Amino acid sequence: MTSSPIADRLAFFDILSTAARAITLPLFRSGVAAENKAPSEGKPGYDPVTEADIEAERELRRLIRDRFPNDSIEGEELPGHRGTNEFSWTLDPIDGTRGFVAGVPVWSTLIALSQHGEPVLGLIDLPALNIRAFGDISGEPTATLIHDDGTQTRLTVRTIDALSYARLGCTQPFGMFGPGELAAYKIIQSGVAFSRLGLDAFGYVMLAQGRMDLIIEGGLKPCDVRALMPVIIGAGGVITDWHGGNPKDGPRLVACGSPALMPELYTYLGRAML
Amino acid sequence: MTSSPIADRLAFFDILSTAARAITLPLFRSGVAAENKAPSEGKPGYDPVTEADIEAERELRRLIRDRFPNDSIEGEELPGHRGTNEFSWTLDPIDGTRGFVAGVPVWSTLIALSQHGEPVLGLIDLPALNIRAFGDISGEPTATLIHDDGTQTRLTVRTIDALSYARLGCTQPFGMFGPGELAAYKIIQSGVAFSRLGLDAFGYVMLAQGRMDLIIEGGLKPCDVRALMPVIIGAGGVITDWHGGNPKDGPRLVACGSPALMPELYTYLGRAML
Repeated sequence: MTSSPIADRLAFFDILSTAARAITLPLFRSGVAAENKAPSEGKPGYDPVTEADIEAERELRRLIRDRFPNDSIEGEELPGHRGTNEFSWTLDPIDGTRGFVAGVPVWSTLIALSQHGEPVLGLIDLPALNIRAFGDISGEPTATLIHDDGTQTRLTVRTIDALSYARLGCTQPFGMFGPGELAAYKIIQSGVAFSRLGLDAFGYVMLAQGRMDLIIEGGLKPCDVRALMPVIIGAGGVITDWHGGNPKDGPRLVACGSPALMPELYTYLGRAML
Repeated sequence: MTSSPIADRLAFFDILSTAARAITLPLFRSGVAAENKAPSEGKPGYDPVTEADIEAERELRRLIRDRFPNDSIEGEELPGHRGTNEFSWTLDPIDGTRGFVAGVPVWSTLIALSQHGEPVLGLIDLPALNIRAFGDISGEPTATLIHDDGTQTRLTVRTIDALSYARLGCTQPFGMFGPGELAAYKIIQSGVAFSRLGLDAFGYVMLAQGRMDLIIEGGLKPCDVRALMPVIIGAGGVITDWHGGNPKDGPRLVACGSPALMPELYTYLGRAML
């Protein structure tokens, strides 16, 4: 591999996600979350999942600062670190903590590298399913699925001609949308082939793999969004906010394998904001 | 193992689920569902997943009729077979076909054995996650999780004191409920710790394992429900219709790890039917 600022950081994703797995996966497998019994009245709740999330984020920050001390870092749990160059890392060691707690293997570790504020590399690592989706849009956009045996397959969206064929994903329509957003979502949902809920970032991997067609979400933070962008764009898809703008800071996101469907989607989604 | 009519059939579950996996799993892994492109106008749609579902059901029926010719058989896709003894099998080779199509590994094969019309043995097999949950309530109720390496762990629900601690599951609130049912669901959902969607039968395994507390669903068929009952009851949980009655024929189901919470749940759920 040629050494360059991007290539050096690209190679570092594997070190970061492996370090995160070492902290998160044993906790998931052991089901320690299930030991987190309902706290008795008045006793402050201890949340082992949040603890693991923070511990993993702290470890990832330490690794990045050792290797790339001038890079900026934003995480979900801890205050940001402002670096002195054009690179910034965005970290979410456990995206989908509710799924994590409930034993559902679709939780992920999200790691993104931005350059001059724009995401260029993104990793969605699914430790419990032992697959990683990686997108690189620093040059010619590409996205790859890295399987448990180390083999890689190219990720490519499928394209469809009409929304009526679409397989739609959304993690939690009740939870992530306000009333106007929910109305727009339901209009679209009523016209698709079917919808599938509860996927968290795994849904974006399935979109990049051509198994789903459309994901509509709200209530997202930058650390939820940035790692998704290179994966979706690298697989040939579109990912924007609900008006077609850059979604990198959230909170609303629409991702689709079929660029031709976007104008129709914006018609509904754009109305939701009025 | 002692030979008895129940023990003979219990041993047969492994043969059945292995036979089903041989048909379903390659199709899921290959992502052939993703090849099922949107049909062009006027061209009748070919659905490879439904084909696999039917093929697997046909194979399971053949195996059962060869080994236990006097048992009755009910499946999801094919007409029932009426036997001459007190045993009946209920089969759903691919429960969660939408998840299957979308690449989500929580789809399952459901197999139940009923005696005199009541479920006594039930298997939830999750081929893509390589785990099986088996319940036996023919005698002392037990439920077991069989891992990919052949090891088994006892399944036991967790109990909580109040609904506010509950982790609630529901596959698809918009899709599986009528308006009155949805209202009751939302009242309960608004008071729990969190809800998790899109789980299909996998949610019941997580309930049996003590990682979730409560599942509320509607629109279910006998072949969706019967295999779940021995798993939930065997793990110490409660599974009923929305009035506390036997849920074996569907369509509405409430499953919970905490028997003490049922009266409160029936207050809300029972109203939905008025």
